[in-house]
Formats: sequence, structure tokens, C-alpha cells
Amino acid sequence: MPNEIIVKPLNRKEFEPFGEVIEIDSTVEAISINDGYATRYNDLTTVDVLESGGRPLLNIFRCKPRPLPITIHMMERHPLGSQAFISLQNKKFLIVVAPSGNSVDPENLSAFITNGFQGVNYARGVWHFPLISLDEEQDFLVIDRGGPENNYEEIFFNESEVRILNY
Amino acid sequence: MPNEIIVKPLNRKEFEPFGEVIEIDSTVEAISINDGYATRYNDLTTVDVLESGGRPLLNIFRCKPRPLPITIHMMERHPLGSQAFISLQNKKFLIVVAPSGNSVDPENLSAFITNGFQGVNYARGVWHFPLISLDEEQDFLVIDRGGPENNYEEIFFNESEVRILNY
Repeated sequence: MPNEIIVKPLNRKEFEPFGEVIEIDSTVEAISINDGYATRYNDLTTVDVLESGGRPLLNIFRCKPRPLPITIHMMERHPLGSQAFISLQNKKFLIVVAPSGNSVDPENLSAFITNGFQGVNYARGVWHFPLISLDEEQDFLVIDRGGPENNYEEIFFNESEVRILNY
Repeated sequence: MPNEIIVKPLNRKEFEPFGEVIEIDSTVEAISINDGYATRYNDLTTVDVLESGGRPLLNIFRCKPRPLPITIHMMERHPLGSQAFISLQNKKFLIVVAPSGNSVDPENLSAFITNGFQGVNYARGVWHFPLISLDEEQDFLVIDRGGPENNYEEIFFNESEVRILNY
């Protein structure tokens, strides 16, 4: 299938143009608290939600699995804030992203799969396909922006530009 | 044991003086998104973290189980912001709280146990004992306040005031 997008394992380095990976690894500040009964992995991502009178929203997205292959026919972005997703059941999910900018080059999409313990935080303005849950319904904790002004934009591909995601 | 604190199942009504229960129930705004593949349960709690130049922090707390019974010998509070906890493994946990105020009456502690799918958001200034994981280590997604000024206070009980938590 010539238009198929390659899916890579999610990692900080390759995801950097699109935002941040939320995970506990050796790069994270670890603080012992509560008399040693807990470790605080501190400030894991940049919650960028205060633009233009914005405020942090805490939400749960309950996502049905999408059958594969998936036709990637559109992308969306949030021009005023970041959007973080963390699986509440430690399940893997698929991510399709494109760099921020006024348009999307369908030849320049990137796809990643998480390892079940990774979340992602899309940087402000980064184009992304809606969240893709694999085999089962799963819940995501989502931290994004609430407030005035439009914070949702979408772009649709021509038929010849549509891409295919498989895994 | 005369000083034992009663543990109640967590519910919105009884937790209201201390903050908010984070859960999906009929009171929550549910928005269909992503062509019907997801439901957004919107704005589940008040993330109150902007006081005095504060910003939202996203953290993970990795908590070891505490053996029961637990001696409740102190309480802590965050005078400048809320603090939300959501289990990343859908596990139950125990909460001990007291109303906000300059001191804590050890006779007036409340304890709750979650049902595994509930999180909590302590309101600004609410006294609480550190998080109590029951049988196993668990990770919590924590949304609280970063920024200038001291946002941590603790109070210790006299020996005669110490309370016992069992379950």
C-alpha cells in the first residue's frame, strides 16, 4: 500500500517536533515525599493553556477502538493550547501528527505507538489525527485549555492525499 | 479502638467540604467527538492553580502501600492551590481530610475509600494526610500548582490527639 504511514515506537527524540512524551525515565526529576512512601516525578510536561484568558481543563475521553486500517482523511489542531493524553488503563494507543503550520503536507505525517505507559502532550498548534484506541475501549485523562476564543481547527485532505494507517 | 476514624465510601456529597470527586456519572457533561469514536467528559474538576503566579503542574506520584492500621499523626495542606489525584491503574485508595482553617481538630477528621475509578481534587487549603495506597504500589496522575511562594504547610498532632486509620 504506497500511501501507508510507517508507525514507530514512541520516543522523546522523534516526538520532540510535536510536543512531549509523558513518561517516567531517567530524565525525570524524582523527589522522595511522604516519609519515603511516595516518589514525586515532578512537572512531566509543559501545560501550555493560559493563552488569551485560558485555564486548565481536566477531562476524561472515553475512546472506542477504531478498526484498522484507518483512513487518515483529516487532521486537527488547537491553536491556543497544549493537549495532554494519559491512558488510565496503561494501554497502548496510536498517534498521527504533523508539524504546526498553516497547512499539512500529507506526505509528511508521522505515526507513533505508545508502550502502554507513555502519554503524550501535543504542543500548541501541532496537527494531529483524533486519538486512536486499538483493541478495546479505553479512558484517557486529558489536560487541555478551556476559555474564550476558538481553539479548534481542522483540515481535510483531497481524495488523492488521503493516507492509510495500519499496524 | 476509641480513636479510630470511620472510613466511608467516597461520594460527591460528603466530600464536598473538601473538594471534588473526579468521576464519570450522570452529573458530568458528555460530548460526542471524533465522529462518535470518543466521548469527552468535560471539565471534571476545578483546577485552581493560578494564584500568585502559579501554573499547572502535571506529575506522577508513585506510591508504596502503607501497612494498616496507620497512625494519623500529622496533616498537610497547600494554601495556594488545588491538588488532583487520579489512579493510573484504577485501584482503590484511602483519603483522610479535615476542613480548611488555621488548625485541625483531630476529632474532626473524615476518611474515604475510592471505588477504583474515582479520583479526588483537594480544594485549596484543605488539610489532608498523604495519599494512602492499599495493597500494591500504584501510580497517580497529579495536577497541582507550581510557581513562587510557599505552597506546603504541615501540622503535627500531640500524642494524645493521634488517630488510627484502619480498613
